[in-house]
Amino acid sequence: MNPFVLRTASRHLRAANRLHAAPATAASLANSKRRYATFNWEDPLVASELYTEEELAIQETARQYCQERLLPRVLDAYRNEDYDRKILEEMGELGLLGASIEGYGCAGASTVASGLITKEVERVDSGYRSGMSVQSSLAMTAIHDFGTQELKDRLLPELAKGKLAGCFGLTEPNHGSDPGSMETVAREHPTKKGYYLLSGTKTWITNSPISDIMVVWAKLQTTGKIRGFVVERSQCPPGTLETPAIKNKTALRASITGMIQMDDCPVPAENMLPEVQGLAGPFTCLNSARLGIAFGAMGALEDCLDRARTYALERKQFKGNPLAKYQLIQKKLADAATDAAYGTLAATQVARLKDAGKCTPEMISMVKRQNCDRALANSRILQEVFGGNATSDEYHIARHVANLFVVQTYEGQSDIHTLILGRAITGVQAFV
Amino acid sequence: MNPFVLRTASRHLRAANRLHAAPATAASLANSKRRYATFNWEDPLVASELYTEEELAIQETARQYCQERLLPRVLDAYRNEDYDRKILEEMGELGLLGASIEGYGCAGASTVASGLITKEVERVDSGYRSGMSVQSSLAMTAIHDFGTQELKDRLLPELAKGKLAGCFGLTEPNHGSDPGSMETVAREHPTKKGYYLLSGTKTWITNSPISDIMVVWAKLQTTGKIRGFVVERSQCPPGTLETPAIKNKTALRASITGMIQMDDCPVPAENMLPEVQGLAGPFTCLNSARLGIAFGAMGALEDCLDRARTYALERKQFKGNPLAKYQLIQKKLADAATDAAYGTLAATQVARLKDAGKCTPEMISMVKRQNCDRALANSRILQEVFGGNATSDEYHIARHVANLFVVQTYEGQSDIHTLILGRAITGVQAFV
Amino acid sequence: MNPFVLRTASRHLRAANRLHAAPATAASLANSKRRYATFNWEDPLVASELYTEEELAIQETARQYCQERLLPRVLDAYRNEDYDRKILEEMGELGLLGASIEGYGCAGASTVASGLITKEVERVDSGYRSGMSVQSSLAMTAIHDFGTQELKDRLLPELAKGKLAGCFGLTEPNHGSDPGSMETVAREHPTKKGYYLLSGTKTWITNSPISDIMVVWAKLQTTGKIRGFVVERSQCPPGTLETPAIKNKTALRASITGMIQMDDCPVPAENMLPEVQGLAGPFTCLNSARLGIAFGAMGALEDCLDRARTYALERKQFKGNPLAKYQLIQKKLADAATDAAYGTLAATQVARLKDAGKCTPEMISMVKRQNCDRALANSRILQEVFGGNATSDEYHIARHVANLFVVQTYEGQSDIHTLILGRAITGVQAFV
Amino acid sequence: MNPFVLRTASRHLRAANRLHAAPATAASLANSKRRYATFNWEDPLVASELYTEEELAIQETARQYCQERLLPRVLDAYRNEDYDRKILEEMGELGLLGASIEGYGCAGASTVASGLITKEVERVDSGYRSGMSVQSSLAMTAIHDFGTQELKDRLLPELAKGKLAGCFGLTEPNHGSDPGSMETVAREHPTKKGYYLLSGTKTWITNSPISDIMVVWAKLQTTGKIRGFVVERSQCPPGTLETPAIKNKTALRASITGMIQMDDCPVPAENMLPEVQGLAGPFTCLNSARLGIAFGAMGALEDCLDRARTYALERKQFKGNPLAKYQLIQKKLADAATDAAYGTLAATQVARLKDAGKCTPEMISMVKRQNCDRALANSRILQEVFGGNATSDEYHIARHVANLFVVQTYEGQSDIHTLILGRAITGVQAFV
Repeated sequence: MNPFVLRTASRHLRAANRLHAAPATAASLANSKRRYATFNWEDPLVASELYTEEELAIQETARQYCQERLLPRVLDAYRNEDYDRKILEEMGELGLLGASIEGYGCAGASTVASGLITKEVERVDSGYRSGMSVQSSLAMTAIHDFGTQELKDRLLPELAKGKLAGCFGLTEPNHGSDPGSMETVAREHPTKKGYYLLSGTKTWITNSPISDIMVVWAKLQTTGKIRGFVVERSQCPPGTLETPAIKNKTALRASITGMIQMDDCPVPAENMLPEVQGLAGPFTCLNSARLGIAFGAMGALEDCLDRARTYALERKQFKGNPLAKYQLIQKKLADAATDAAYGTLAATQVARLKDAGKCTPEMISMVKRQNCDRALANSRILQEVFGGNATSDEYHIARHVANLFVVQTYEGQSDIHTLILGRAITGVQAFV
Repeated sequence: MNPFVLRTASRHLRAANRLHAAPATAASLANSKRRYATFNWEDPLVASELYTEEELAIQETARQYCQERLLPRVLDAYRNEDYDRKILEEMGELGLLGASIEGYGCAGASTVASGLITKEVERVDSGYRSGMSVQSSLAMTAIHDFGTQELKDRLLPELAKGKLAGCFGLTEPNHGSDPGSMETVAREHPTKKGYYLLSGTKTWITNSPISDIMVVWAKLQTTGKIRGFVVERSQCPPGTLETPAIKNKTALRASITGMIQMDDCPVPAENMLPEVQGLAGPFTCLNSARLGIAFGAMGALEDCLDRARTYALERKQFKGNPLAKYQLIQKKLADAATDAAYGTLAATQVARLKDAGKCTPEMISMVKRQNCDRALANSRILQEVFGGNATSDEYHIARHVANLFVVQTYEGQSDIHTLILGRAITGVQAFV
Repeated sequence: MNPFVLRTASRHLRAANRLHAAPATAASLANSKRRYATFNWEDPLVASELYTEEELAIQETARQYCQERLLPRVLDAYRNEDYDRKILEEMGELGLLGASIEGYGCAGASTVASGLITKEVERVDSGYRSGMSVQSSLAMTAIHDFGTQELKDRLLPELAKGKLAGCFGLTEPNHGSDPGSMETVAREHPTKKGYYLLSGTKTWITNSPISDIMVVWAKLQTTGKIRGFVVERSQCPPGTLETPAIKNKTALRASITGMIQMDDCPVPAENMLPEVQGLAGPFTCLNSARLGIAFGAMGALEDCLDRARTYALERKQFKGNPLAKYQLIQKKLADAATDAAYGTLAATQVARLKDAGKCTPEMISMVKRQNCDRALANSRILQEVFGGNATSDEYHIARHVANLFVVQTYEGQSDIHTLILGRAITGVQAFV
Repeated sequence: MNPFVLRTASRHLRAANRLHAAPATAASLANSKRRYATFNWEDPLVASELYTEEELAIQETARQYCQERLLPRVLDAYRNEDYDRKILEEMGELGLLGASIEGYGCAGASTVASGLITKEVERVDSGYRSGMSVQSSLAMTAIHDFGTQELKDRLLPELAKGKLAGCFGLTEPNHGSDPGSMETVAREHPTKKGYYLLSGTKTWITNSPISDIMVVWAKLQTTGKIRGFVVERSQCPPGTLETPAIKNKTALRASITGMIQMDDCPVPAENMLPEVQGLAGPFTCLNSARLGIAFGAMGALEDCLDRARTYALERKQFKGNPLAKYQLIQKKLADAATDAAYGTLAATQVARLKDAGKCTPEMISMVKRQNCDRALANSRILQEVFGGNATSDEYHIARHVANLFVVQTYEGQSDIHTLILGRAITGVQAFV
């Protein structure tokens, strides 16, 4: 299925009859008021009513792919820290990469649709979603929003297809929450005109070991201003670029993570992103990714809930009662379902606002923080439902729990978003 | 301002330019994507985008009334457990009572609009909101949904105006969470044909001491089936009906609460609600009230946040820094703002679903439980911002905290809603 | 019963057979290892094994007085904000005031015994305990530890008997957590030699309206150093000292609280506490009081647990089952019992360390913070057991809940103690 | 160092000057009261005062071994799920196995001393502690408390030396929290007199793949009563006993876990434990192990705190401030230190009570549940301090977090202990 297919798939899938923001008059609804619908524990507050046919079709496409193609691979990938590079191509074929970009072979879908894709991928594994997010929200967004037309024309279609793999180099070993202090530097090539030499080390970079192109942020030696560069691996002389993998990770083991080590790595000046300087560049990309995470975390949480519910219904203890009959178990399920439903509504609202040009970074901080916090907290509680069996990776719950800790942490640790919100609410900053 | 005014007030108040559920195409928004709006801490996720002009106008009307007329009265009312009966009439004049009922002098507004009214009232005080909810959601809804045409025609307009005060008698001293075990009984009058005699005691009945009419639920002696009766105080012979107030309450002291003691109290058979039997009757009313509570609790929480934020900005400690500068304070504010924003979105969604006939009781359980739990938890945390000054009632925070405990408890204690949700999720009941 | 009686009462009460810190050899216990004792939910970890006969006898004396004489008064006192001045005299007669002071008519009991007294008083009401703590730990400790021999000889016996009432003036309207910034000033009397003139306002002062003597902290105008003064009401000319009560409190209504307003109030130089300057003075007293609070809060929590347990056993819902049969209820009780048991052990340990001269202020911060936090959190959870009936003050739970918020807040709000602990753990201060 | 050495090592290590349960008189302490000791964040409430010289010496011995010999192995062991069988022998040499057993080459130390050993082992890794606990508290305790003299004489010395490895088979695939429903059965051998045939499957059995002897609980076919059997691997004919390892565990990967599959496995009648029947047998052993876990979990938590503190002091963000300077970080450290200190006091108290024959299973439920819950909750919070670096296993924190989930779950999931406590508090059982 290509992006075009993705864009039009919805027509055939559902006959929609959705809510409008403006309600019908009370009068016309008089008869229906007592006509109760059915409660669906998988979508308790009927978020689906907020989506267009197209968005639902895209979600369905993504879900089918993830459940049929990703889920069977995840156990081995996680056990062996073995990311399958082909996944990017498969996603590319379906139009899942850079899905909200218009043109360049991308689907041009809404931000909501993009969010629903990430939700479906993360329903399987946060690592898979990370790999996709880095490609879509970080690398492609950086090039699309800030790159030259030449870079866009040349790279975006290949990134959209997954033929090229991309990554995003911002975090450094000594600078996580505080990227403004980065040490990576770009200086003008002393002899080769029109080139910069990049030196420095980035770490915890998803996809870096397999990336063909890397969006790297560095300070211009001359001005001290942060600028973005598209580093193309194929153009780097030996010894100027290394991207060693970080192994023995404690989570996100189905994704591949590494460093970017640059030692006077030459990059043509045309590969410097012209449209932005300072932290506005990386933050725009991060905001895009964070909103995706707000959706994605809800996917992982819903999977935890689904699995815990199934286990609670099948596992019998004490006189043959299913665990599901115990109040302490029901509370865990009810809490998780509630947080999943609330978080999905909130992420959807912010995505709508983004498409309408009414979104602010603080809104994204709010939903990134809350959805990650709640996904993590609930997944841990749901893990208890499995008792000792949670120790078997075949129940998948421990993997989600381990992953969601990182999801809560990266792209803005929760405490950082707390302080962003605190500043927005009070007008006073408390970072230092 | 009469209901008509309420219904049309919106025209003049705001020029709306709201979101649609279906987003504009990504293409048309290309330019606006980076145009960030302003973050508004009082509505962080821009719930206002989900409301119609009319709904916003109704909210504005309610807000103005509550802030100007109710707020100045609340301290004394709470201190002295002194509910001002005139409030119902004032609310009636503005069309705030039974606002979602069509006809009978009611505003016929959407469920969302009704929710916004309760939110504004509870922003001042949960007790004031209780008084209004009992009138609107319980007494009026019972009569409107289940009463004879004669009862509707005769009582609803007077209740809508606040000329008559109503209440709702379900809870009994020995039966709170389990109304199906009620002991109040209705037997056919042994001598006076066409009359029932009601005997039994209801307790924790908001408004009962001042009520002119009481919707009372009782078991028919003949069948054991639960039926509703409209007891009219003016028709009750001396000694058959007492409604003593319960004093020295630990919360909701700005509302009036009492018992309904019936001793062979005669009620004409025409006052038995014909359209319902069993618990479906009271539960329909409770669901209406509970949804109002889900909105209302967010109003109280927003007021706590507003007051805590102001205090944190004005109070200086340690080198003249405002409390707002401290990370531990900012976290309290950020958490509260997040939960208020999420809860408002969720309540709005359920109200929309209700107007579309797509709401189930479990959805209402979810938002009633979650919004009350979060309002209570956050209000308690925000109380810490005030330090010792929280002990002064003039900071209002302790009143909200005390009230919200009851709000979490009544109309379905949170644990009960947990079990309702648990049953809906698993298909297994765990009440016993 | 006088202090002597208190000191010796233990002989008759219990034949003790307590644990020693050094255990008997494993060999000698071989037979007993499987001999299980009985679990006592009121003392689950058998803290009583840690107390001497004398300490247990003192606790018993205090308990009996509190249950028989204080409990019957508390409802009215709380409703009407009406503190009975005679309580101090009654406590004095029993030797409960300044119980750990040696001499001056005081009991000379251990710090543990003092803690057990506060626990018993706060089991009834935190306000009653506040009144006692202010007299014992703040006023008497200040005079005992830092006063002249003349002040001790003249005032301590009368304070111990409760004939004189004392209070402690540190907090000011603009300086709660940061007393070092106090504005109250003491300047030498321009004409009357040997006198100081005190000016300034103290607020939230327990007992101030009824106090005969007030320990007031002020900055010497000449040096800027903080010094303590014993202000004797009977010696203050009209217009120089006012102690208006603060009414309409939202908690601790069974205690009396007020301000101390001094306007060139003359105090003889002999009434300046000679043995201390700076914040070391008030902090020594506060540490004494805080340790008492760590015990006291456990008393209030135990009372909440006791009442919730009784209610849960008596209240039947759903097929006649007592609430106690529900898992969600049992969890609330188990959590509370655990925190009460842990907190009692910890407070006891710190009191033992204090008597051995091995206690540090940070230890007191730890147990004050944790015991208050847990008492508050659990009391709120236990309140849920009562459902709507918690709204009746006759169940006592709402009073404890309201009180415990203030207990958590005063004498070092929990966040402040968090930062004290954080500094002690890391060596880095984060107050500013 | 052999057990004798362990028993006497203390003499040289510390000059003790400990607290007594009965405090010195207030008088004698008058001078010391203001003499503040130093606050030690590693033992904030000075639990060390509660231990004898011998106990402290044993702890020191264990600590030295664990830090020097176990810590260097743990990363590889965890990565590769590779438990080093030699560890049992090393522990045996030091007298750490079955340390509270008197005779049979065991150290005969107090229960407190045993607890301190487990604390030191778990400070390194919960898996290592599990391996030791199974050997000591489960296998050896079962044989010691319930076995024949012949079994004790023959097996205990070898188990104490770690020459033999033991395990404990109770849990079955379908019966975790409810062992009373076990399906494993022991029937009399149809032909070989004096033998039983055991059939059934046990799972999640620590050490089973390497065990020489297995204490297995089974129902006697004739009576249905649960009895314990010592299954000796060397005596089992091929095909009657399999102990496959469970691989790909999500936690406790430094321990080895497996199943015990018995298919008509012959066991001599002399190997049936004569002194107990029913669940009293396994529960006695579990109680011993659980108390060890209550200590052990505090060791793991203290290690998390230590590592987080170090990281927070070394890691700089935002203007070069160490993380330790941020309030939100300090709160995490203060909370963890508090819970570690409280939990250690409580476990110590229960261990003392056990040695005095005054311990009940409910007390053990209380400390097992609370210490595990708090260790788990705090370790998760402390993990946040590390940000993205927590994803590197070299910071050890993620390993503790993953382990502690299992520690909270096994030997009585927290919810089960909640219900045990609930029953003890109310007298009403709520398991079903």
